[in-house]
Amino acid sequence: MNSSIIRYILGCVLKIEACLMLLPCLTAAVYDEVEGFYFLIVAFVTALIGYLMTIRKPSNTVFYLKEGCVTTALSWIFLSIFGAIPFVLTGEIPSFTDALFETISGFTTTGASILSDVEALSHTSLMWRSFTHWIGGMGVLVFLLAIIPMTGGSHMNLMRAESPGPSVGKLVPKVKSTARILYAIYFGMTLVEIILLLLGNMPVFDAITTSFGTAGTGGFGIKNDSIMSYSPYIQWVITIFMILFGVNFNAYYLMLFGYLKKAFSIEEVKAYFLVILASIGIIFIETIEMVGNGFKALTDASFQVASIITTTGFSTVDFDQWPMTCKTILVLLMFIGACAGSTGGGIKVSRFIILVKTIGRELQYYIHPKCTRKIKMDGKMIEHEIVRSTNVYFITFMIVFCASVFAISFEGRDLVTNFTAVAATINNIGPGLELVGPTQNFGLFSPFSKYVLMFDMLAGRLELFPLLILFHPTVWKDLYVQKCVEKKRKKELGL
Amino acid sequence: MNSSIIRYILGCVLKIEACLMLLPCLTAAVYDEVEGFYFLIVAFVTALIGYLMTIRKPSNTVFYLKEGCVTTALSWIFLSIFGAIPFVLTGEIPSFTDALFETISGFTTTGASILSDVEALSHTSLMWRSFTHWIGGMGVLVFLLAIIPMTGGSHMNLMRAESPGPSVGKLVPKVKSTARILYAIYFGMTLVEIILLLLGNMPVFDAITTSFGTAGTGGFGIKNDSIMSYSPYIQWVITIFMILFGVNFNAYYLMLFGYLKKAFSIEEVKAYFLVILASIGIIFIETIEMVGNGFKALTDASFQVASIITTTGFSTVDFDQWPMTCKTILVLLMFIGACAGSTGGGIKVSRFIILVKTIGRELQYYIHPKCTRKIKMDGKMIEHEIVRSTNVYFITFMIVFCASVFAISFEGRDLVTNFTAVAATINNIGPGLELVGPTQNFGLFSPFSKYVLMFDMLAGRLELFPLLILFHPTVWKDLYVQKCVEKKRKKELGL
Repeated sequence: MNSSIIRYILGCVLKIEACLMLLPCLTAAVYDEVEGFYFLIVAFVTALIGYLMTIRKPSNTVFYLKEGCVTTALSWIFLSIFGAIPFVLTGEIPSFTDALFETISGFTTTGASILSDVEALSHTSLMWRSFTHWIGGMGVLVFLLAIIPMTGGSHMNLMRAESPGPSVGKLVPKVKSTARILYAIYFGMTLVEIILLLLGNMPVFDAITTSFGTAGTGGFGIKNDSIMSYSPYIQWVITIFMILFGVNFNAYYLMLFGYLKKAFSIEEVKAYFLVILASIGIIFIETIEMVGNGFKALTDASFQVASIITTTGFSTVDFDQWPMTCKTILVLLMFIGACAGSTGGGIKVSRFIILVKTIGRELQYYIHPKCTRKIKMDGKMIEHEIVRSTNVYFITFMIVFCASVFAISFEGRDLVTNFTAVAATINNIGPGLELVGPTQNFGLFSPFSKYVLMFDMLAGRLELFPLLILFHPTVWKDLYVQKCVEKKRKKELGL
Repeated sequence: MNSSIIRYILGCVLKIEACLMLLPCLTAAVYDEVEGFYFLIVAFVTALIGYLMTIRKPSNTVFYLKEGCVTTALSWIFLSIFGAIPFVLTGEIPSFTDALFETISGFTTTGASILSDVEALSHTSLMWRSFTHWIGGMGVLVFLLAIIPMTGGSHMNLMRAESPGPSVGKLVPKVKSTARILYAIYFGMTLVEIILLLLGNMPVFDAITTSFGTAGTGGFGIKNDSIMSYSPYIQWVITIFMILFGVNFNAYYLMLFGYLKKAFSIEEVKAYFLVILASIGIIFIETIEMVGNGFKALTDASFQVASIITTTGFSTVDFDQWPMTCKTILVLLMFIGACAGSTGGGIKVSRFIILVKTIGRELQYYIHPKCTRKIKMDGKMIEHEIVRSTNVYFITFMIVFCASVFAISFEGRDLVTNFTAVAATINNIGPGLELVGPTQNFGLFSPFSKYVLMFDMLAGRLELFPLLILFHPTVWKDLYVQKCVEKKRKKELGL
């Protein structure tokens, strides 16, 4: 294990975080809030630590997949710990566990909150809360790759560990350019949403924070009733942008370069829209009688389906009161999630396509054992390795899921609360049902359960293995052995 | 598709069922009940139809895996349909849907009932209900293999389609001998249980039916409170035998021939006992305060864990009233299920072992991509094909599970009821939680939901693919094409 490069990258990440913290500081300056002072202090300390970690260049640039995973997992943990400190210092979230929960929920674009009164927060903190969504949506390491020149296989292995989906799609041969294009699209779309929201007479602060929440498919609202009190125009803009941010960014890249037909024929994108339309249709039919107003029923159904499948988690209605079929659909959508290569969470549409095709092939095997075909997607064969890792991913996901439900069951809450709390965090959504429904929050859980759910949020965002690997003894043994070897070498050189 | 051999085997199955129906007839004679008359009529008609179907020997003996699957699935459907008729004729379960539900629940060893008052049934019907468990436990086709000489690959493919578990373990080279040994062990153990129950002063009728329910890991009780009113001695005997019938029968075979050490070192069996002990331990600790009596708490915990993990479904306590951790454990046990090669249902312990090892190997891959080892079990490498099919099985299982929960959600019942109703049927357990808890029954569902749950029971017992294949259009096209070819050939021969 190459610990020096891990240290170096972690240092860079902290320096970036320090810079990003200047946005809440700026907000504090605009609104003349004292909270900005604490953010400034933390930014300074973070920058200092980052600087100290990057003084020495890494001694060697060897960088394998395991280094990529460990770096990614530790980066996210560091980001969250330093990002949580301002909340504690300002006294707005006095408990560190709660502040950490809120920050992890932000960076992982979950949007599950422990706060019962969001409106009591300062503008500064609200901006930071929403900004963490935007940073976490595309990934901070992707950002790093976009700005810092790196060598020794680090690009691909970092990208692989942080990007969601069964396979990494490099848009262009160079990782650096890919990262830049991704961030450009991301930034552009966020800007368009802010402008459209402003056109709907949304206050500037609300428009920016809400757009951050939509772009990262996060879901932190700045009102206690989330998006409920805004106009239908604003709700529709958010609905459409939630859906757009859940699309595989490859499609936008193709569109940008004029390959419109190719962009619209991506199997995953087609399936994604199909699932959305079908879900909206069923929920609309099931709720229209209850709502009594066709347009409102359609608005609510569309908003909620978009919010859940893209794993954003905004709400305009207390869907915990909806008929059982609608709730079941929402729970299923939680697991499906958005497209791979988007900012959304969940298991991802493309994985489900592969899973369903795997089942089809298995049936084929039972009928004609000797002529089973390979699985195809978008007209191309899918490599056996990707099918295998998709299967393993699904299995690991279910086992981590069950273990988490079991772990938080000791609190004695009902099964639906436990089940949907884990579903909402591991899929990076936000609200669940019952005690963690859209009008409730996660503050009720014990610290132990909160740490379990924090683990789930990180595991969901990093797609399990980069985080799980941290618990594998070999990784730490490797690190220790390498330290010893280096020490010995230094001693020998000193002789 | 070789339709003639399918027809022939189905005929044999019906003839066997007719013979088996003589047991309830005998019961009727003992208790002087008029219901026996209806059973006699149905037995006669079933035998007649079976006879007509087997007059013509199959024209060719080619028998592939698909024929095995189709035969198995159709056999179970035929068995259930004919087995349900007596309940309708006697008027004890007037609705055919309900009678079919009860019979499928019996044959698949589920034990989910639509009856609210079991004690109102005649001895004859109670005996048939419990006897279906015993028949379904080991499998009627395995029975067929034990008594009828067959050729053309039919042995192995039938065995493969009906036996539970990731791989078929032939105990001895000949399938016929394997089937005979299995039935001998099964019969012997059932007999020992009957004797032990009689020693505990259980009435003969109760001892026989309860033993049938235990042996098949079925769970139909003959009392409305299941096993609650029997003495602790009887409860302990049932507990121990439930656990024993959930053990891989390979272990008994090895013991029988003196390989004790080998029998006790089967990894699956060790894991099975470990899970049982851990679950009993936790539930005991969690419930002892509530129960107030150490012995009773231990008895209840052991009984319920044994009943759920072996997917039997007897109950001595309303576990729906237990603390949430205990209920969560029970729900998890529902999915784990018993050992492969036992009479129990669920996903099977050995599959979980393979799944967990697959995850371990995946982590290994992230750490050292170039030196990942093959998965081993019982000291032997597991073939790649078995790992792959285990993964696919788990995925298919989860997707069928979700689709079923969605299908029955239209009734508007709560999520826990829907979730556990499907879990209890697809894993062949019986009772779930809430509205389908141990003191409730499945009568509340609409006919549509009942058919969904019947599908789940059969899918669970036949391990998905043999049943799913029936819905694949190719199978029916094959059958049609073959019919046409045969007709043409006959015409040509006639010319």
